Amino acid sequence: MSQKTWGGRFSGSTDQRVEEFTESISIDRRLYRHDIIASQAHAKMLAEVGLIAPAEAEQIVSALDAIGSEIEAGRMQYKVSLEDIHTHIEQALIARLGDVGRKLHTGRSRNDQVITDVKLWVRDAIDELDGRLVDLLKAFVGFAERERDVILPGYTHLQRAQPVLAPHYFLAYAEKFQRDRERLADARKRCNILSLGVAALAGSSLPIDRESVRAKLGFEGIARNSLDVSSDRDFLIEFVFVLSLISVHLSGWAEEWVLWSTTEFNFIQLPDGFCTGSSIMPHKKNPDVLELIRGKAGRVIGALQQLLVLVKGLPLAYNRDLQEDKAALFDAFDTVNGCLAVAAPLVEQTQLRREVIASRLEDGFLDATTLMESLIGFGVPMRTAHEVVGNLVRECETRKCRLADLPVEFFEKAAPEQGAKVHSQLGVSNAVAAFRSYGSTAPAEVEKLLRDWKARLTS
Amino acid sequence: MSQKTWGGRFSGSTDQRVEEFTESISIDRRLYRHDIIASQAHAKMLAEVGLIAPAEAEQIVSALDAIGSEIEAGRMQYKVSLEDIHTHIEQALIARLGDVGRKLHTGRSRNDQVITDVKLWVRDAIDELDGRLVDLLKAFVGFAERERDVILPGYTHLQRAQPVLAPHYFLAYAEKFQRDRERLADARKRCNILSLGVAALAGSSLPIDRESVRAKLGFEGIARNSLDVSSDRDFLIEFVFVLSLISVHLSGWAEEWVLWSTTEFNFIQLPDGFCTGSSIMPHKKNPDVLELIRGKAGRVIGALQQLLVLVKGLPLAYNRDLQEDKAALFDAFDTVNGCLAVAAPLVEQTQLRREVIASRLEDGFLDATTLMESLIGFGVPMRTAHEVVGNLVRECETRKCRLADLPVEFFEKAAPEQGAKVHSQLGVSNAVAAFRSYGSTAPAEVEKLLRDWKARLTS
Amino acid sequence: MSQKTWGGRFSGSTDQRVEEFTESISIDRRLYRHDIIASQAHAKMLAEVGLIAPAEAEQIVSALDAIGSEIEAGRMQYKVSLEDIHTHIEQALIARLGDVGRKLHTGRSRNDQVITDVKLWVRDAIDELDGRLVDLLKAFVGFAERERDVILPGYTHLQRAQPVLAPHYFLAYAEKFQRDRERLADARKRCNILSLGVAALAGSSLPIDRESVRAKLGFEGIARNSLDVSSDRDFLIEFVFVLSLISVHLSGWAEEWVLWSTTEFNFIQLPDGFCTGSSIMPHKKNPDVLELIRGKAGRVIGALQQLLVLVKGLPLAYNRDLQEDKAALFDAFDTVNGCLAVAAPLVEQTQLRREVIASRLEDGFLDATTLMESLIGFGVPMRTAHEVVGNLVRECETRKCRLADLPVEFFEKAAPEQGAKVHSQLGVSNAVAAFRSYGSTAPAEVEKLLRDWKARLTS
Amino acid sequence: MSQKTWGGRFSGSTDQRVEEFTESISIDRRLYRHDIIASQAHAKMLAEVGLIAPAEAEQIVSALDAIGSEIEAGRMQYKVSLEDIHTHIEQALIARLGDVGRKLHTGRSRNDQVITDVKLWVRDAIDELDGRLVDLLKAFVGFAERERDVILPGYTHLQRAQPVLAPHYFLAYAEKFQRDRERLADARKRCNILSLGVAALAGSSLPIDRESVRAKLGFEGIARNSLDVSSDRDFLIEFVFVLSLISVHLSGWAEEWVLWSTTEFNFIQLPDGFCTGSSIMPHKKNPDVLELIRGKAGRVIGALQQLLVLVKGLPLAYNRDLQEDKAALFDAFDTVNGCLAVAAPLVEQTQLRREVIASRLEDGFLDATTLMESLIGFGVPMRTAHEVVGNLVRECETRKCRLADLPVEFFEKAAPEQGAKVHSQLGVSNAVAAFRSYGSTAPAEVEKLLRDWKARLTS
Repeated sequence: MSQKTWGGRFSGSTDQRVEEFTESISIDRRLYRHDIIASQAHAKMLAEVGLIAPAEAEQIVSALDAIGSEIEAGRMQYKVSLEDIHTHIEQALIARLGDVGRKLHTGRSRNDQVITDVKLWVRDAIDELDGRLVDLLKAFVGFAERERDVILPGYTHLQRAQPVLAPHYFLAYAEKFQRDRERLADARKRCNILSLGVAALAGSSLPIDRESVRAKLGFEGIARNSLDVSSDRDFLIEFVFVLSLISVHLSGWAEEWVLWSTTEFNFIQLPDGFCTGSSIMPHKKNPDVLELIRGKAGRVIGALQQLLVLVKGLPLAYNRDLQEDKAALFDAFDTVNGCLAVAAPLVEQTQLRREVIASRLEDGFLDATTLMESLIGFGVPMRTAHEVVGNLVRECETRKCRLADLPVEFFEKAAPEQGAKVHSQLGVSNAVAAFRSYGSTAPAEVEKLLRDWKARLTS
Repeated sequence: MSQKTWGGRFSGSTDQRVEEFTESISIDRRLYRHDIIASQAHAKMLAEVGLIAPAEAEQIVSALDAIGSEIEAGRMQYKVSLEDIHTHIEQALIARLGDVGRKLHTGRSRNDQVITDVKLWVRDAIDELDGRLVDLLKAFVGFAERERDVILPGYTHLQRAQPVLAPHYFLAYAEKFQRDRERLADARKRCNILSLGVAALAGSSLPIDRESVRAKLGFEGIARNSLDVSSDRDFLIEFVFVLSLISVHLSGWAEEWVLWSTTEFNFIQLPDGFCTGSSIMPHKKNPDVLELIRGKAGRVIGALQQLLVLVKGLPLAYNRDLQEDKAALFDAFDTVNGCLAVAAPLVEQTQLRREVIASRLEDGFLDATTLMESLIGFGVPMRTAHEVVGNLVRECETRKCRLADLPVEFFEKAAPEQGAKVHSQLGVSNAVAAFRSYGSTAPAEVEKLLRDWKARLTS
Repeated sequence: MSQKTWGGRFSGSTDQRVEEFTESISIDRRLYRHDIIASQAHAKMLAEVGLIAPAEAEQIVSALDAIGSEIEAGRMQYKVSLEDIHTHIEQALIARLGDVGRKLHTGRSRNDQVITDVKLWVRDAIDELDGRLVDLLKAFVGFAERERDVILPGYTHLQRAQPVLAPHYFLAYAEKFQRDRERLADARKRCNILSLGVAALAGSSLPIDRESVRAKLGFEGIARNSLDVSSDRDFLIEFVFVLSLISVHLSGWAEEWVLWSTTEFNFIQLPDGFCTGSSIMPHKKNPDVLELIRGKAGRVIGALQQLLVLVKGLPLAYNRDLQEDKAALFDAFDTVNGCLAVAAPLVEQTQLRREVIASRLEDGFLDATTLMESLIGFGVPMRTAHEVVGNLVRECETRKCRLADLPVEFFEKAAPEQGAKVHSQLGVSNAVAAFRSYGSTAPAEVEKLLRDWKARLTS
Repeated sequence: MSQKTWGGRFSGSTDQRVEEFTESISIDRRLYRHDIIASQAHAKMLAEVGLIAPAEAEQIVSALDAIGSEIEAGRMQYKVSLEDIHTHIEQALIARLGDVGRKLHTGRSRNDQVITDVKLWVRDAIDELDGRLVDLLKAFVGFAERERDVILPGYTHLQRAQPVLAPHYFLAYAEKFQRDRERLADARKRCNILSLGVAALAGSSLPIDRESVRAKLGFEGIARNSLDVSSDRDFLIEFVFVLSLISVHLSGWAEEWVLWSTTEFNFIQLPDGFCTGSSIMPHKKNPDVLELIRGKAGRVIGALQQLLVLVKGLPLAYNRDLQEDKAALFDAFDTVNGCLAVAAPLVEQTQLRREVIASRLEDGFLDATTLMESLIGFGVPMRTAHEVVGNLVRECETRKCRLADLPVEFFEKAAPEQGAKVHSQLGVSNAVAAFRSYGSTAPAEVEKLLRDWKARLTS
């Protein structure tokens, strides 16, 4: 008998080039644990409904355990002629158990197996990533705590805009990664539906019990239309989309810290262990880890695009194109997982260069908007106040000075009888202290947010 | 005073080419209703906290209503020098109310407005799309009901695989679009968070009340970190991702029906009103609507890619690059919305060509897998049964006949003493009747599913 | 008779929603001039081969001129029921000429027309873009000339690496855009092949003369397989790819200048006319044009993705999906064309802040690599020299000083008996003067390159 | 001394996680041959200009040969701490030659090396692919020759349109792949420019001779601006774009043959060796190779997107993000190369099912357009002729017959006194014989094209 699972109706044998072209064992061997778990649940169910004997199920379960250990130990010989991990494991089972092994595939298809294995794998991957995100959140919250009193220039258009407290800055990233966690949780919910038992595409005439398998594998529901499931890769694409957004969030942070590492910004001191040098320029200390994190976003985005292109325009039900899904899935996960694994310690070990930051904090008119708001407080219509302060800034540029350096008359003119008061409230520290709105960089607001984050992450 | 909202600190005036290059009024005018609603809520809040007088708020609210009517009636003169819809509306307000109008922008930034408007718009768009998806679901369920007794060949690899009941087929698409609804609902939840009040990027020193605005605009929560919000476009990208998946689902269905419309398949009769002809070939009746739906998936996927590229590597907080988000958002929405608007009636008006389908239903060995399962039922190990049936199929191919045409001895050999019984159960109708697993094409299962769908959609 | 070009075999009329869904007039009206030119060439050819009378051809040519003028003047009434620009023009022709107008479409299909029109349009678009690129090259060369003596820090990893002459920097961008011009020229060559005359998809049984049409329309060759042509959109996708690379090049430059505009870098002074302010922050002067150029790269990349998705997996020959190509094409072209239109004057009007640059030029060990090379010149193996200089840099970091500030003994130790000489050659100016390799920032090399660019652009 | 090429200025050692995150040896080891060739040319040049002794160059060249053999034989021990293939080879050289090995890196940077190696690799890859494309062209031409007399239905919108000769069909694909060859040649031209010698980014103060290296490595020109080169990845992205178009062309053909393999079309007999079966359905013979070719287009398109995202918005010059280019490059090449390797033999071994095709050739009104053209030949205006034939087709649909089955009076009415003649020319064979335009399916035209292809491919 052919070792292929499907040789019966073929007269010619498979072209060697085709075996190499169509194999997936180089990719899907990674699913072996999930394949074994799913097959064990399936075998137990087959015994429960009488399709195989209880003793046969036991034999299968323990032989699969042994095969799993063999693979774990690196002793499985992979061959492209056996196509994929599912065939490797089934053939190893038949080699051990003969006809009993030949019964395992009763009432299921390979695509059935593939989807189930991948769903189990994605579920684990989501849980692993969520842990990584928590680590990163903790790192940001730790940074925020460590630098809680530092004032940073906040930017829009990469131009100095308003002053912000450092924790406000770092907790902004925390918000983004927290949303990613929520998206992961939503994706997990939709992934966690048993597909096994759709068989070829129309279901089975055998008395299989899908509810039993569901319970054994810990799925929350059972897919209810076999044709849908045998063509569905939504759960996987949604996961890779969430990975894309995580990678995009990482890339923005990485970009920022690459900037902050320049001679010109010089806001942070990266740990030596996270930088590398140049093969030709002896003085270089480069933020390679950050650059790679930024660049790797392209890889994840590319994987998402690959998947969308893959499924676009495919009719029902399974089409072999779908085999290409796993390379993209694994690559996207490994990429984001790898980035998160270095991002957290990098954040932990980085320090703000407080003096450098402080030394130029009064540059760039960071207090201009607060000045405008104080004029509004004295009854000047907002648009007028904006115009007035704009003119003051222009005056400063001509004089090459700061707002606080302007004579008090300017302010008196802007807010009659309040000029001295207005003038005395200029400067970055005063500006920070003046904030009060919910979600703002007001010290009390930031403190509250920081407490909230710490509570959330320790619970 | 300059009509720009920001002219005060500038000495040169804006280059005409730059006005044209940076304008967004040609795109964002579409947000006018949401801009007005958000401004009215903002104005009322300003009065509540004493930043403007109650009478001023009333003036603003009613002037904004009037401006809205003017825009509705097509009487707003758009100019690129006024950049965007927000400036147009604010300038119209100032033209009417003078200094009172100049107070509206108190405690908020344009980016603030943009995000709020877009969130309100996306929330509406999600609701509209959900209605469209319900229409499409109803159309599929109606089709399923209409053709409930028809048996179709089911395909994998576009090769005939197993027979399925027509409702099973159409309800598979229903499952996909139902998942899209769930993803829309999740995206809505994350979108439905008030951003207004983050002001420039650090919040405000004025006593604005964001909770009041939240309640007025019906948001479920308030964004709690101003820096996060002023850089965040997650909600919009997630929405466009959901649109991408919808468009991919539509494309698969469209591909299938394009195939089914060929002379070779000839499974369906498309309504004339949904086909077009050829300018040169007088006999052509082409499934253009389906082809366009398939092709338009590329447009939505392209929009998603644009957005991911846009935000990748952007540091905090707002960067002008983000202005480009709306063209992609609107285009993706319009595309999917347009597709759904024609998809539902197309499904409603299409008919299966029952005789054509029936006439070739016994081609392609659709009963082979059920035959194999019946051998399994007689104790033949699955892999052996598979091999045996594979050999029978090869025999049929040599004889150019169907499985049912083989002499009964062949089956007797495969299942000793059961040959006649096995043989009598061949054929597509028997195969369909034999199914029993949950989620399969078993008539009772399909009936149950159909009932469930009808109940869900009428509730 | 129906006004559709294809109504004969239809009994039902087109659904109103379908007319709106399938129309392309809102997009392809832009092709009207090219459509008219191509139709005129076609009509003349029809007369040449006797398919219509010479007088009929004359009538058609002059009626098309008149229709063209009408469209030019904005007097054409567009209706979605007439689908596309080709039908609008043909119907206008028939309205004027009756049966003579009904003869124009002899021996050609609408797809034929579309491809021909689009090829003519792309050819023009390439030529327009090439002119824009020349303008931008001139602007960079002008900048290089203006700032020829300025030394800039050169970066890798955004860390200070080696000093470079300003012209060297700006001419690096010139190299990139020059390659884009070469790619445009190659794309033009492949675009400039006549497709008209493939008719439906198999060619025609009428004695049409494609060579005559080719000559009239200035194509360089004639497509030689009708099935290929009726399915081919390569020329258009290749063009959009070239646009993508241009936009990516622009985005890199824009990113750089956004950085250079920060308070921290402060290397350039952007013209007021190319910046905008903030609606809330009165002091802001933002590099919006640069940010938008950077962001718009996403749009072009998205358009490329749309097109690749569109054509992937389409069988021969024409499929209606392809109608979606034009929106992407036009959008990608308009985007890049718009960016180039503002990029050139922006480069012309921007100035380096020479003092700021000079004031920090000795920061960041820009002379370290040259120091290493001078040690190599004294016989120290490269890897050893690299290590030695690396250690010196570490020493400087401890002492918070520059290399030139180290005592001469350090250099004496590194290069016995040459310490004083080595020491005297430190500093950025010396480093620049020391370069000599072809393509380097050596002043003579840069001067040669600048001359070469000026000569190339004036010829 | 540290084994890193850049350890001198660092005090901390690299974090283990960072070594794993930043390593590229798992990817770039594939460049070892090109790295050795480039280093040998570099060493010889160093001796020519006196930077090392001639004997040193000889030692280096032969040691590199030995290292190359070692790698070839699988005896190189790769370690992530040595980062990349360049460092592995340099360290192996230093281990053998001591200080002489330490001189090799004189006047060049690692990025220098990387670009040179990759350019050499891409040049080879282009040549290999071109050979593969020639093989595929030969296979299509062979198919065309074998089936030269078969008439196929030609499709637009996947609806039967006009009859075409089989060679016309297969040679349409030849045109597409020939254009791909031209694009490859253009990409090769732009790739084939020496970059080595740009050193860090500003060039070198050492007297290196780039022209000598150019000649040794067979490049056609020398890059003339070091800053451009050290940031440039255009050549690589352009190559991957060309790969994308090849993969898209392959996907269209694969889709077509998947359709043609269905029970419904049944136009071709795929070789058993290129199909696989199902693990559950014993009767299946699936066109997996074609499906995978179709699906793999997504992978190549994804790689292109990854690269465009990668370089978008990067300032000058080298940034570590660029390290990510090679995984995408190699994957895209391997994918397309693998597809082409199976596509050619698949085409060679596939056969048309002539009887099946012939048996339904008169379905679908394939002769309608030729009928219309014959009416035009009798003076009926094209649009009128179109309408008339459209009405005849409608009549046929009512009668469920072919055009040739209509009574002659119908044709007499359409073309007075010519009805019998018109009627006698109906039918698919007559239609094919009637074609005459250049590039059409006219037998003489197709014959000429086939001869031309054979001549081109044997020369």
